[in-house]
Amino acid sequence: MQTWIRFDAGDGRPRMGRLDGERVFEYDGPGYASPNPTGVSFPRNEVSLLAPCEPSKIVALWNNFRALAQKLGKPEPAHPLFLIKPATSLAGPGDTIARPVGYAGKIVFEGELGIVIGRVCRDVPAADAASHIFGYTVVNDVTAADLIAEDPNFAQWCRAKGFDTFGCLGPAIVTGFDWRDASVVTRLDGAERQRYPLSDMIFTPEQIVSRLSRDMTLMPGDVIACGTSLGVGSMKAGAVVEVRIDGIGALINPVGG
Amino acid sequence: MQTWIRFDAGDGRPRMGRLDGERVFEYDGPGYASPNPTGVSFPRNEVSLLAPCEPSKIVALWNNFRALAQKLGKPEPAHPLFLIKPATSLAGPGDTIARPVGYAGKIVFEGELGIVIGRVCRDVPAADAASHIFGYTVVNDVTAADLIAEDPNFAQWCRAKGFDTFGCLGPAIVTGFDWRDASVVTRLDGAERQRYPLSDMIFTPEQIVSRLSRDMTLMPGDVIACGTSLGVGSMKAGAVVEVRIDGIGALINPVGG
Repeated sequence: MQTWIRFDAGDGRPRMGRLDGERVFEYDGPGYASPNPTGVSFPRNEVSLLAPCEPSKIVALWNNFRALAQKLGKPEPAHPLFLIKPATSLAGPGDTIARPVGYAGKIVFEGELGIVIGRVCRDVPAADAASHIFGYTVVNDVTAADLIAEDPNFAQWCRAKGFDTFGCLGPAIVTGFDWRDASVVTRLDGAERQRYPLSDMIFTPEQIVSRLSRDMTLMPGDVIACGTSLGVGSMKAGAVVEVRIDGIGALINPVGG
Repeated sequence: MQTWIRFDAGDGRPRMGRLDGERVFEYDGPGYASPNPTGVSFPRNEVSLLAPCEPSKIVALWNNFRALAQKLGKPEPAHPLFLIKPATSLAGPGDTIARPVGYAGKIVFEGELGIVIGRVCRDVPAADAASHIFGYTVVNDVTAADLIAEDPNFAQWCRAKGFDTFGCLGPAIVTGFDWRDASVVTRLDGAERQRYPLSDMIFTPEQIVSRLSRDMTLMPGDVIACGTSLGVGSMKAGAVVEVRIDGIGALINPVGG
């Protein structure tokens, strides 16, 4: 297991690095790109974390947990159901989640596991999918919930989930992470709101990567948000939301006005 | 009015250029990036056209023409309804539209006008939108139509329209193009299947750019497909589909097996 981050050492220039204890060792590229160490390192507490990768797209799954499907009375899907959040939705640890201009409705958190793609994926068999996954991160798949069903003829998934800062990723990418025994825990202003086991997933990360790689080419650095489960709720201005997966870390974002 | 293309002069290296009559003048960047001429030029008939830009995303509108809305019995939307086609769906003039692996259903053409963004767009007022549009291109918004409603609980717009080669763009980007008097004409194996006036649009390009720029940041080179109208139909293997907008050109793609 390795922990990869993107960070700012104080000069405003994004850098890639591997976290080892209390030190960050800088590399000349992201972990999945066979980077070389630059020989420079920093104390962990002197750098600011950025989103751990720069996905060309974030693919976000809907209805991928049995407990939520059961609560909503939805059958398990035959194929992963997804929408695309654009690269411009990216936000990193500590970044403020911004309320969209002209939108006064509910903004909800959705704590999720994120798969980070390591190699170009096109028609990848399920048995080969694991080797195309670089690692895992934590996602808050922020959603302007009132927009989804605003038009009765067209569910506005991309709009509701695509706003700038609605694709929160971080704090790190962990390789070799075993999701099977892990849980997603979301806290709003410290109060626990979600706690669900990743073992309840309908499609596993390997199945997701294989299936989606037939729907579109997945690029290194792309992120797949595995879907959420029970406990989704809305966030008010000034709140702080934390999504934590033990073994990866806690993704913490304040909510703007 | 200028005509901008991306092309291959035979060495496999993508180049940018301005088409002037029968000659292509190479530039060191896309037209919207204030590029400089390299001093090199080529005869038009000795280069191969590529997709005219490399969008970070293609935003595709649904239900943006009155005639089609009326035929489908749908009210005009209050806000542009859209989905996102990923960058990996890009195809250029002459590229073969590939049937997705494992999909045996209908693949349909949708001839459309494409807006090419020239400047970063974020909360752009409608009055300023025109200055953020670099030019216009032709789009074939290819769709695996049987997937859209395959799951009764989730319309799979991104999946149905996001496959590799399903975002056909070209042959060129024309600046200063006046869409108001233009029509989109789609021919399948030479037989006319769509002919609709762009004046029938519900949201104009300026309105679309302004509205979408509140939903997400639009980047230079991003493409917005303005939606289609009457006459959409399916394509068989071996067919050739042409989408033409006089003043921009004809986008021609064969359909694979």
